Amino acid sequence: MQLLQSPAMRPLYLSYCFSSSRYLATITFSSSSNLLPKSILPTFRTNRGFNSTPSISRLSIRNCSSISAKPSSGLRRQKGSSDSSEPDDKKLRALRQLFSKPGIGIDAYVIPSQDAHQSEFIAECYMRRGFISGFTGSAGTAVVTKDKAALWTDGRYFLQAEKQLNSSWILMRAGNVGVPTASEWLNDVLAPGAKVAIDPVSNFVSNFDALNWLQQFLFSFDAAEELKDDIAKKNHELVYLYDVNLVDEIWKDSRPDPPNAPIRVHELKYAGVDVASKLSSLRSQLAGAGCSAIVVSMLDEIAWLLNLRGGDVPHSPVMYAYLVVTMDDSKLFVDSSKVTSQVLIHLKNAGVELRPYASILSEIESLAFKGTELWLDPSSINAAIVNTYKAACEKHLEGLGSEGTGKSKNREVSNCSSGQSWGPSGVYRASPISLAKAVKNASELEGMRNAHLRDAAALAQFWAWLEDVIHEGAKLTEVDVSDKLLEFRKKQDGFIDTSFDTISGSGANGAIIHYTPEPENCSIVDPKKLFLLDSGAQYIDGTTDITRTVHFGEPTAHEKECFTRVLQGHIALDEAVFPGTTVGFVLDAFARSFLWKIGLDYRHGTGHGVGAALNVHEGPQSISFRHGNTTPLQEGMIVSNEPGYYEDHAFGIRIENLLHVKEANTPYRFGGIRYLAFEKLTFVPIQNKMVEVSLLSNTEIDWLNDYHSQVWEKVSPLVEGSASQWLWDNTRPLVRQ
Amino acid sequence: MQLLQSPAMRPLYLSYCFSSSRYLATITFSSSSNLLPKSILPTFRTNRGFNSTPSISRLSIRNCSSISAKPSSGLRRQKGSSDSSEPDDKKLRALRQLFSKPGIGIDAYVIPSQDAHQSEFIAECYMRRGFISGFTGSAGTAVVTKDKAALWTDGRYFLQAEKQLNSSWILMRAGNVGVPTASEWLNDVLAPGAKVAIDPVSNFVSNFDALNWLQQFLFSFDAAEELKDDIAKKNHELVYLYDVNLVDEIWKDSRPDPPNAPIRVHELKYAGVDVASKLSSLRSQLAGAGCSAIVVSMLDEIAWLLNLRGGDVPHSPVMYAYLVVTMDDSKLFVDSSKVTSQVLIHLKNAGVELRPYASILSEIESLAFKGTELWLDPSSINAAIVNTYKAACEKHLEGLGSEGTGKSKNREVSNCSSGQSWGPSGVYRASPISLAKAVKNASELEGMRNAHLRDAAALAQFWAWLEDVIHEGAKLTEVDVSDKLLEFRKKQDGFIDTSFDTISGSGANGAIIHYTPEPENCSIVDPKKLFLLDSGAQYIDGTTDITRTVHFGEPTAHEKECFTRVLQGHIALDEAVFPGTTVGFVLDAFARSFLWKIGLDYRHGTGHGVGAALNVHEGPQSISFRHGNTTPLQEGMIVSNEPGYYEDHAFGIRIENLLHVKEANTPYRFGGIRYLAFEKLTFVPIQNKMVEVSLLSNTEIDWLNDYHSQVWEKVSPLVEGSASQWLWDNTRPLVRQ
Repeated sequence: MQLLQSPAMRPLYLSYCFSSSRYLATITFSSSSNLLPKSILPTFRTNRGFNSTPSISRLSIRNCSSISAKPSSGLRRQKGSSDSSEPDDKKLRALRQLFSKPGIGIDAYVIPSQDAHQSEFIAECYMRRGFISGFTGSAGTAVVTKDKAALWTDGRYFLQAEKQLNSSWILMRAGNVGVPTASEWLNDVLAPGAKVAIDPVSNFVSNFDALNWLQQFLFSFDAAEELKDDIAKKNHELVYLYDVNLVDEIWKDSRPDPPNAPIRVHELKYAGVDVASKLSSLRSQLAGAGCSAIVVSMLDEIAWLLNLRGGDVPHSPVMYAYLVVTMDDSKLFVDSSKVTSQVLIHLKNAGVELRPYASILSEIESLAFKGTELWLDPSSINAAIVNTYKAACEKHLEGLGSEGTGKSKNREVSNCSSGQSWGPSGVYRASPISLAKAVKNASELEGMRNAHLRDAAALAQFWAWLEDVIHEGAKLTEVDVSDKLLEFRKKQDGFIDTSFDTISGSGANGAIIHYTPEPENCSIVDPKKLFLLDSGAQYIDGTTDITRTVHFGEPTAHEKECFTRVLQGHIALDEAVFPGTTVGFVLDAFARSFLWKIGLDYRHGTGHGVGAALNVHEGPQSISFRHGNTTPLQEGMIVSNEPGYYEDHAFGIRIENLLHVKEANTPYRFGGIRYLAFEKLTFVPIQNKMVEVSLLSNTEIDWLNDYHSQVWEKVSPLVEGSASQWLWDNTRPLVRQ
Repeated sequence: MQLLQSPAMRPLYLSYCFSSSRYLATITFSSSSNLLPKSILPTFRTNRGFNSTPSISRLSIRNCSSISAKPSSGLRRQKGSSDSSEPDDKKLRALRQLFSKPGIGIDAYVIPSQDAHQSEFIAECYMRRGFISGFTGSAGTAVVTKDKAALWTDGRYFLQAEKQLNSSWILMRAGNVGVPTASEWLNDVLAPGAKVAIDPVSNFVSNFDALNWLQQFLFSFDAAEELKDDIAKKNHELVYLYDVNLVDEIWKDSRPDPPNAPIRVHELKYAGVDVASKLSSLRSQLAGAGCSAIVVSMLDEIAWLLNLRGGDVPHSPVMYAYLVVTMDDSKLFVDSSKVTSQVLIHLKNAGVELRPYASILSEIESLAFKGTELWLDPSSINAAIVNTYKAACEKHLEGLGSEGTGKSKNREVSNCSSGQSWGPSGVYRASPISLAKAVKNASELEGMRNAHLRDAAALAQFWAWLEDVIHEGAKLTEVDVSDKLLEFRKKQDGFIDTSFDTISGSGANGAIIHYTPEPENCSIVDPKKLFLLDSGAQYIDGTTDITRTVHFGEPTAHEKECFTRVLQGHIALDEAVFPGTTVGFVLDAFARSFLWKIGLDYRHGTGHGVGAALNVHEGPQSISFRHGNTTPLQEGMIVSNEPGYYEDHAFGIRIENLLHVKEANTPYRFGGIRYLAFEKLTFVPIQNKMVEVSLLSNTEIDWLNDYHSQVWEKVSPLVEGSASQWLWDNTRPLVRQ
């Protein structure tokens, strides 16, 4: 039952992401022989995931000290021109030589994609799987044995991996029939009793089976524990290598420095609530759960809680850090070179002390020795922290001399501290910050509304320009187009970065849900085909995410019908009114029902949470066909509304707005509860030309006309000239037929 | 993982039932301190529910031999005139005297509502809770200690229980704040170390918390095991009294005889598939699961599998029996006096042998001794069978001398036999017969269609009569009306029984979802108020279930708006098209969305499965706001479509048709799967007068007019005179405004 401790499964939103690295999906170690649909299996290993003591328990982590972050546009180029020509064999040989080094002695090494914080976008210095394998896709896990090397990735990346992996590597096409999981493969190729090693600071994220996507959902858990269990079947041992990351050892000087972008204060006028109030509220929740401290490792949670923003990774305004909040103090573990004097004063005022990033594990150890009952979110905290805490708790107990009673050894990890007399054991629950962050306050909402209007102005300018040059016969690549969009956005006040890699897909490329064009390898935008553009920006006051699909010439009747049915789904979700207890997946079918009528569907969720001037994807809420996420939608949350339809090798359609969950002013309140509805944040025209009017009801036509009337009213004051004319032309009422 | 072994949670459909005894909900023994929403907790105790050995293990059960069943109308009268005047104190005293009898020695006795087969409708001789407490509602659990007696029931029955319980009883209003569960109460009132007894043949059905209904769902499990765990907290022991039911001991001669209605063969033209084919298919499934036999205790499963029908309980055409199917033979445990010569030949032809009903436990024991791996459905099999099997398996192991290895004792109950060398352990999964029965074949569907047309003819005659006499000023009670409906139905070919107690509710009574009028205590049908009529019948070839809500005069604008929104939900579900992998709860919101728009809702599911000439409620599918049932809808299944709205103390609205799940002829099949849609089985007019036309879309008006056109076309050939005129009048197209 404790499996269901938290209905808020943080990483579920990851299944709704559309940019290249927006969609985190690496390789599961779970046995594929499980016949059960996973759709209602929120595998939160709250009470069994952390029973192991590390095989090697020296408690230190690497200190990545000096730093320089790159802007994300620069990053894209670099990723694109990845050093795939480098002799990967040499890397593998160097890695394998380390296997037998004294103090290591392993038979296999697992290299996942994640950083230590389960970030969606990660800094280059943590892209170890990309370095060792040459494969630069966002999702993939490499496993190297003494004589074999294999890389698991999913269908989005088969072609790319084929190109990038050299002959030393076996490509494991996850989801294809007969392809083993990594643990199955290890059990097959290793002699029994082997040692399989991981860096416990790395997080694993489980994968869903691409072939069974309708039945599955994406979730996160301590995959290290699952790997351990799975390989134990062949008597293999999972070894945690704390002191050294073997890839870093061979990466050496060519490894990029860790990022050190300066941290800035997120002003109170945007944050809405000061740090002291947020910490006070958090401490109440700790007390309520019987805890005396919490370790926060999700970077957006730290940024939100401390009203800080950083620039360590592309697209997300966060900084690499850990945060420990006890009932009495708060400690931020961060590279001090990023901390400006203004931030220092801000933190001091909030009673937050600074500590070196690398000292987190010794702090955890020290907290355990003090008997501190820690709240740890098993969906995001890395194995190094959990294992350090558990090992120290056991040592603490031994120090107390309670071992003789046998109680400590037999006791399971409890969900709530009930045995302080026995020493701490940890409370394993979803972070309380996740929900607090998801429910926006008035200032955050105001910032989001304003940022969306400026973003809409940039988009109006962009679309006016694009239609113009396309009609003039210009040959623009998909990358040219997204670069130009960036230009327009950069001119808007408070622009900081894109919120993800722009998806700019002409014709068939639009049907690749996670397509990201690369400069040297992308298509010309074809005026005779549908063009899908999914993009977003980070502004000082808000985060945007919008998709529009347009045709520059004359769409076919089939394209129009598909577009119209996607639009009907979009409208149905936008207009939904629902009880305040409603879980997101209950609304998902509203967005699909019009496609279903003719036997069509789309293979992604309909909505994800969005941060306020923070990550473009956040939990705990979602709107999806997957049933695992049981977080009710709440007033103040922000979700995307993005149904789509994708016809392989032909075209892709998606219509995406961001919505704010607000109270509905219903005449009744059956059950004594509030009813909820959505307020639109996004105000950019939907191309009337794509609409097959005869399919729409009067209500739907009214919706579209009313939306366009609002777009004109809100955005026209922000644009002029050709953009204003374009906005006018594209907000005229649809004529009933 | 094994918790989710079967996505088909049989008793979920029980939460969609509307007649008095159609809604089985008794008292949970689970701790109410569990903070988790139960909505995704399909608590199937497949791998831990049966670890106990019975405290008393003498293996025999009562043999209820001679018999006479009453028709259900007679039963109703008798239930209504329950002997509440009898001195219940005397019964309690007699019961308590038995507590200290040699060989018993207990401190408390628990008396649930169920029979040994988890039947929805049970024979009078098993209504022990009603006998001991005087409370005759369908849902309730009595617990008697040496000095206290308490009865738990839910909100539907608070008033009735207040009237029927005498002062010796404490009424526990389940779901009200502060009301303990039965186990909490036992832990409170008993001195530690007490003995709490149950009759292990009885099944318990868990309750959902009425106050948290939106978050909860109804599920069944081995509540005996849960009770055992809960009371173990106070060191109480759960004792299984195998040899004797203490209530029967004091009931003695006044206890009604067990029913012995003759069994009949359900002709192949209705059943569609012969018994040999069904048994062959079942045996394949047994082999696939690594089992060598199955014990079937659900009475409708036995009737379906053997193409037999019985008359032992009201409303459901079943007979009390157990069935054991091994790879080589089949044994029906049934009172032989019910077996006609025709049935005998039928069974012999199918290779089914007869055994006495009471010999089931010795058969189970014998199977275990032979090393038979049994398939047992933990959601329906009673504790006596499971415990007998487990105890015998252990004895078997001891006989094999394997005890010394310690393996047998430490081994958990497995889901699939993997250790035949250790002896059998049982496979605990949902019965494979449940799904096979739910997916109707062409003959069953044909029978259902035909039965529905005859039923529609009876209803047309009835409504023509009712409107006529009401307009003439007749004062009819709700019972008069339902009796007259029965008269009309009885005239139809193949009529056997009602399929549940008719819900005939005028005005405010219509708002009581599970209302059943009693002759001496019901209302006059008020021509100025809404009248809700939910009824159904058992025919030789099919089972019906229909609800209509009408007004005899002029409905208010509010009543019309509510009715219209219920109708819009009904239409939205009826017209849904959905992928073949869709779970019922995904469609549930379609039926609510129009009510939600104005802040209204209803507190019951939208659809339940219906048997073909069998139980009016069956699983495994359902359409509900509860998320626990993850059985996909499949071609051939039958579901009800019955959204409603209930305004306390004012009126109730429900519109119910039965639907057949069929393949949709969509132009596309995205994902390479079939898309499904519904075919209507029910053809009875929906009162146009109740419709607020301005709320309907053109599509919705078309739906209603098309439906009425079909009603006229299909039913008019079966009626004449005033019924024909009424049908004509009530199938005229709605005029657009």
